[in-house]
Amino acid sequence: MAEKLTKQSVDYPRWYQEVVLQAGLADYAPVKGCMIIKPYGFALWENMQKELDRMFKETGHVNAYFPLLIPESFMRKEAEHVEGFSPELAVVTHAGGKKLEEPYVVRPTSETIIWDTYRKWIQSYRDLPLLINQWANVMRWEMRTRLFLRTTEFLWQEGHTAHATAQEAHEETLRMLEIYRRFAEEFMAVPVICGLKTEREKFAGAVRTYCIESLMGDRKALQAGTSHELGQNFAKAFDVTFLNDKGEREFVWATSWGVSTRLIGAIVMGHGDDSGLILPPRLAPIQMVIVPIYRSDEERSASCEAAEELRKSLVAQNIRVHVDDRDQLRPGWKYAEWELKGVPIRVEIGPKDVAKKSARLAFRVDGEKRDVPLSELAQNSGAFLDEIHEKLFARALSFREENTHEVNSWEEFKERLDDQGGFLSAHWDGSGETEAAIQEQTKATIRCIPLDDTLEDGSCVYSGKPSRRRVLFARAY
Amino acid sequence: MAEKLTKQSVDYPRWYQEVVLQAGLADYAPVKGCMIIKPYGFALWENMQKELDRMFKETGHVNAYFPLLIPESFMRKEAEHVEGFSPELAVVTHAGGKKLEEPYVVRPTSETIIWDTYRKWIQSYRDLPLLINQWANVMRWEMRTRLFLRTTEFLWQEGHTAHATAQEAHEETLRMLEIYRRFAEEFMAVPVICGLKTEREKFAGAVRTYCIESLMGDRKALQAGTSHELGQNFAKAFDVTFLNDKGEREFVWATSWGVSTRLIGAIVMGHGDDSGLILPPRLAPIQMVIVPIYRSDEERSASCEAAEELRKSLVAQNIRVHVDDRDQLRPGWKYAEWELKGVPIRVEIGPKDVAKKSARLAFRVDGEKRDVPLSELAQNSGAFLDEIHEKLFARALSFREENTHEVNSWEEFKERLDDQGGFLSAHWDGSGETEAAIQEQTKATIRCIPLDDTLEDGSCVYSGKPSRRRVLFARAY
Repeated sequence: MAEKLTKQSVDYPRWYQEVVLQAGLADYAPVKGCMIIKPYGFALWENMQKELDRMFKETGHVNAYFPLLIPESFMRKEAEHVEGFSPELAVVTHAGGKKLEEPYVVRPTSETIIWDTYRKWIQSYRDLPLLINQWANVMRWEMRTRLFLRTTEFLWQEGHTAHATAQEAHEETLRMLEIYRRFAEEFMAVPVICGLKTEREKFAGAVRTYCIESLMGDRKALQAGTSHELGQNFAKAFDVTFLNDKGEREFVWATSWGVSTRLIGAIVMGHGDDSGLILPPRLAPIQMVIVPIYRSDEERSASCEAAEELRKSLVAQNIRVHVDDRDQLRPGWKYAEWELKGVPIRVEIGPKDVAKKSARLAFRVDGEKRDVPLSELAQNSGAFLDEIHEKLFARALSFREENTHEVNSWEEFKERLDDQGGFLSAHWDGSGETEAAIQEQTKATIRCIPLDDTLEDGSCVYSGKPSRRRVLFARAY
Repeated sequence: MAEKLTKQSVDYPRWYQEVVLQAGLADYAPVKGCMIIKPYGFALWENMQKELDRMFKETGHVNAYFPLLIPESFMRKEAEHVEGFSPELAVVTHAGGKKLEEPYVVRPTSETIIWDTYRKWIQSYRDLPLLINQWANVMRWEMRTRLFLRTTEFLWQEGHTAHATAQEAHEETLRMLEIYRRFAEEFMAVPVICGLKTEREKFAGAVRTYCIESLMGDRKALQAGTSHELGQNFAKAFDVTFLNDKGEREFVWATSWGVSTRLIGAIVMGHGDDSGLILPPRLAPIQMVIVPIYRSDEERSASCEAAEELRKSLVAQNIRVHVDDRDQLRPGWKYAEWELKGVPIRVEIGPKDVAKKSARLAFRVDGEKRDVPLSELAQNSGAFLDEIHEKLFARALSFREENTHEVNSWEEFKERLDDQGGFLSAHWDGSGETEAAIQEQTKATIRCIPLDDTLEDGSCVYSGKPSRRRVLFARAY
């Protein structure tokens, strides 16, 4: 906390790293590419888990747990899947003091071991749908890592569902995409675009990958969650069939979907500023921090007493509140620390406030200050937090809108990208070759084919070939 | 569910395996010694996690997450620790397509990587105490495995705390032991004995290991949780020091403590009977199951309507309730399934009950049936569940008391053990040699030196040497 943050405008990646470390979200680990999620960061993740888990359960999903280790041969059963994941696998070759006959990989995702299991669990249409989610750690041996955004090990949830028809699987994929959208927007206050990945960007083993894409403070895009229609690919690879209600044997239809601790990176870069984090109030580990102000011992006891009374009334309203009564630190130092940590509302209570029976609120989102009578504070606190959520979301949405541009020529595409970044809405001829060429020349990828766009005839920004709709390009994390 | 369970008296281990599989708690995995925790078993674990996590947080602990992989060299830094865990390690030697320069072990427990981190986090007495818990998967390559009781991978929580004084660390160790005792008794309804492990049985790297020990239905003991005083062993191995309030540099004092998915085994074997599981009501995923009874369509709609109304009123009382309205199954079949799954209360609602505005309750714990007016059912359901909890606990406690015997001669020791098992309270000369000899000859180990026993002069049941107190022996899982 002692050090001052690098300004975003000076060096955004450095700002990101410093704010994650200094705000106490995470720390580097003595294991290549891994991180330690510190208590403050983990409390944020717990709040995210709690809301997501509730949303999953409300839509009929249950949790289970499958093994960390997967027999290496399982990974080879689905052709695209093995190709996609092989370069990133960590492999256990020895255990219990002996070399293993067959090596195990540490799961990079669990489709293979889960579909191997579903073969035993699914016999008839009565066993379907099977709606299972797993909260787990996974490992992908990445070369370039960055705290939360890309780490060798990360925490996530992975849903794996099995259905009797393609239509049901399709609906499930979109249902979970919608849950991710709602979670991002209604809890993280991060606006997202729902779309379809291109063939080149889709999950290894999926028929179709849907995603939510968000724009970070440096105008780079971040994929925040994915929902995959897996067709019958894994059912065929693992021979999972069921008897339908006509007594015919069919392969099962699958989906999988996941979000990870990467979402913490989206919160940091979606809202943070030069003073540090700005946490969305519905997920913040501490929603309100009370700082008692005093000089004399007498003032101290009056301010602390009022702070404690207020704390109790806020707890009664289910507000996550903390009183910072550390005696050795000055208020200004405390303010800076809680700003760094992104606490949505700071409450200052000093002798004058006690006399007036009020407290001064400072809103992290925009620095606004308000004097609020103590008698009204607790009962209004939920509304204050909702107001902050709306402000945060609206600001992020404006920012995204200001940084989303239709471009119609290759020159404009490159200029816009180099100048400001952001989302570029452009025509594309639909070919992987064009997509690859654009990426090679600009580092921009197709983030998604937005779901809510209308058709529009045009010509590809790169090849000039005909196109029937715009897609979203961006440089991305 | 179709198959009938083996009776406990015929083959207890087989009964255990069958009930775990058939009740849907877990399944075998295609990975040596691993299991899949199925949704019903995982829901039980989630309820256990929720209560434990609440108790940890109420005592000032916070959660964090440390890496799965530990550099192999870390394991060697604490001499006893490496000796204890080396034979059980799974080792990642290759990753990202290359052989690693230094292999990583999959954590068997996280003392080493956590204390390596604490060196960075702890500088002064102001940084202490550090009270961190982690929910995680761990891996120990066991030769003989058994669902929940001993699996290669298991889920657990591991608390790792750092303190300024030996006394504070000691108090923390006992505080967490007491939390484990309360959890076992007040939530699992499993009575436990709090005690100290012998030198031979303590955790590899601990100064002292405290434990809670319980007695299973086959009169074998199960260690249900451990709390370790680690002294300055890990602080010295990882050079973790702090400046005390006198400005002197000292090594930090440590504790660690954990319980695991093994506790599910304790619930199965602590309460189950020949009809299946008997789940403790405060943790049961389904606390009450409503089975509507009917013959005609008319009866069906009346019974189902009453069932649905009752369900809503139970949900309003925060009861975890399920209505089993599957049309293709007969009530008797459903009863047997819910008995197998150990649901504490079954509620039958048929045409006669609807006419009388009442429902018939069947208590899984003792088979008691009661007709209860529908108007009173929901509001009394909490009290019914509490009553069941008390009955379960009292029965398990009586069973343990009936199966705990003071023995005073070696003949009596062996006879009692072969005859009935249970806990044997006997004098012991305090030597590891005697302990080893007794284990070799009888397979009984010292489960603990109970904390609440009084001193009593006697002579060792095996060597005849003088002893100042009794200890508890048993054959154990």
